[in-house]
Amino acid sequence: MVQAPLEASKIQISKTSTPKEKLPNDKLVFGQTFTDHMLEIEWTKEAGWGTPKISPYHNLSLDPSTIVFHYAFELFEGMKAYRDSNDKIRTFRPTKNMIRMNQSAERIALPTFDNEELLKLIDQFLLIDESFVPKGNGYSLYLRPTLIGTTPSLGVGSPDRALLYVIASPVGPYYSSGFKPVALEATDYAVRAWPGGVGNRKLGANYAPCVLPQQKAASKGYAQNLWLFGEEGYITEVGTMNVFFVFKDESGKKELVTAPLDGTILEGVTRDSVLTLAKEKLPSDEWTISERKFTIHEVFDKAAKGQLVEAFGSGTAAVVSPINRIGWNGKDIDVPVADGASGELTKDVAEWIRRIQYGEEEFKDWSRVAQ
Amino acid sequence: MVQAPLEASKIQISKTSTPKEKLPNDKLVFGQTFTDHMLEIEWTKEAGWGTPKISPYHNLSLDPSTIVFHYAFELFEGMKAYRDSNDKIRTFRPTKNMIRMNQSAERIALPTFDNEELLKLIDQFLLIDESFVPKGNGYSLYLRPTLIGTTPSLGVGSPDRALLYVIASPVGPYYSSGFKPVALEATDYAVRAWPGGVGNRKLGANYAPCVLPQQKAASKGYAQNLWLFGEEGYITEVGTMNVFFVFKDESGKKELVTAPLDGTILEGVTRDSVLTLAKEKLPSDEWTISERKFTIHEVFDKAAKGQLVEAFGSGTAAVVSPINRIGWNGKDIDVPVADGASGELTKDVAEWIRRIQYGEEEFKDWSRVAQ
Repeated sequence: MVQAPLEASKIQISKTSTPKEKLPNDKLVFGQTFTDHMLEIEWTKEAGWGTPKISPYHNLSLDPSTIVFHYAFELFEGMKAYRDSNDKIRTFRPTKNMIRMNQSAERIALPTFDNEELLKLIDQFLLIDESFVPKGNGYSLYLRPTLIGTTPSLGVGSPDRALLYVIASPVGPYYSSGFKPVALEATDYAVRAWPGGVGNRKLGANYAPCVLPQQKAASKGYAQNLWLFGEEGYITEVGTMNVFFVFKDESGKKELVTAPLDGTILEGVTRDSVLTLAKEKLPSDEWTISERKFTIHEVFDKAAKGQLVEAFGSGTAAVVSPINRIGWNGKDIDVPVADGASGELTKDVAEWIRRIQYGEEEFKDWSRVAQ
Repeated sequence: MVQAPLEASKIQISKTSTPKEKLPNDKLVFGQTFTDHMLEIEWTKEAGWGTPKISPYHNLSLDPSTIVFHYAFELFEGMKAYRDSNDKIRTFRPTKNMIRMNQSAERIALPTFDNEELLKLIDQFLLIDESFVPKGNGYSLYLRPTLIGTTPSLGVGSPDRALLYVIASPVGPYYSSGFKPVALEATDYAVRAWPGGVGNRKLGANYAPCVLPQQKAASKGYAQNLWLFGEEGYITEVGTMNVFFVFKDESGKKELVTAPLDGTILEGVTRDSVLTLAKEKLPSDEWTISERKFTIHEVFDKAAKGQLVEAFGSGTAAVVSPINRIGWNGKDIDVPVADGASGELTKDVAEWIRRIQYGEEEFKDWSRVAQ
């Protein structure tokens, strides 16, 4: 039998008869409340992708032997939908998420699918739960496409059943009143990713192991880990985000730098957006934009020389997250935050991206209107 | 509020009214059919461990945002129960599994528990489903203690809800008619574990990423991966098992060697049993028992000199799994299998362990009778 491809046109919709009450914007907490519906598509090795279904939000009922509970056959994406000034619902570079989701699926032997078909389904889902997309700057509907292996068997092997589902949570700005810069512990005793590993894929497997180091950092007064790699102390990521530093040289020329995609770095959509927009908007005689290896030693050296300008994490949840302090080997350095909240570029980047997300500025095909 | 500890005496039992039909021994497939009941204990951060429950085997019903589906908050154990000649049900070194399960839990911020309390509950579960423990050499009831994070929220943080459950699957001998030796591909492009990672813990996160490399090896005619680490080509594990090699020197003295517990190796119960029994049973003037680093180069050199005696994987499912060929860098070496099925020590080790598992020989406190 031929495996059926994912086909958006086969959609079956059954709407809720008990709509949820909507929370006011100031009560929204990331990932804690969800919309009225969810999107689901089952896959089997024999038949391929089944009928896509949008139905009332409901629990998943799974045999306790299901491989997602035992061997971490699971991956996800994080993306957001925004309400523009014409009340159209927009997603931000969603094709990038689809490409990455397929790469994640391939890496752990889960089924792949056509990017555009899933985006059409997500658009339909968004239009059905449209009223849950909050109004206002910084407010959005967080989308969580998820793919899990559902074979009910304890054998370790490639899944012959899977479930792709999408749920959505209305969220507020990551920082409710302006930026709140965070302190980081540079962490070398625990290692997030390794060459030949899966740190460049958005797999569940990359997340649980990072929580204990985060708790240890928190107990010392640091909000997140700055993940180092190797004896050289290469800087890779921060918490669950990519990380950017701004240095300046003696002549005052600035460099925006982030770690290269060497297989240990998550290929962040926000990371790529920051790089692309920085190349587009920053004058090249004043700025160098670099994807290169750099170390905690370099950061501490630059800080000592007054050449560390600013630093920030980048990711879908916070867009950018300013950094004001880094602890390493018992020593702390301050990272400048121009107005006490963030560096200048951090603020600019946030605004560049926000304008595209909310449809205030068209840039390439980065904003997709659900229709 | 104080977190309640896990207490076996609080057990609540509700038996099935629709007992399953039992399969004949020759129809048993690993991890595909399960007994009539399951054991469950819920945990919350506020109240600690709840009432242990043995109830009819049933699906788990979980919110689609539950952290086990997104961030791999999951770990498990593998252990077996055996029916002895007096129809008593015995488990093999189960305290080792409990210790390891707690170490796994600690590593990903899931709750820990008292080893003996969970063992008492497992004993009760075994006595209730006693009729599912098959009779006969090589037959057993595979037990799968599992611990998952059940917080229904997309925030990445330490779980405030969890579920510990145990399911059981009647299984036959891994090789239905004697040993069947396997060919391995020595794999360096994919890396199972690394220093500062979680390869020494029995987390779901360690499993899904290994399936694609296994498929690639299989497409080239190798059953499993021999996992290498680093530029040196250190031998670490095979498939989902620990691995042992036997070398001999010019004088004919033999060495049994396995990788040391350096943080990248799963601390296998069977591994420890092999080492302990080898030290106990093999004459020390003829044998050296080594936990040391060794490389694929050493194995190939020894093979070329006729000093490679035998090799086997060790784990709960197969106990020992003989190896007859290793491919690396486009070259294959044969690993001797004395009678075409396994090396001599491989056979002896299997029998040493089998006798203790089935209560034919008492050795230390390794065999626990459920009562």
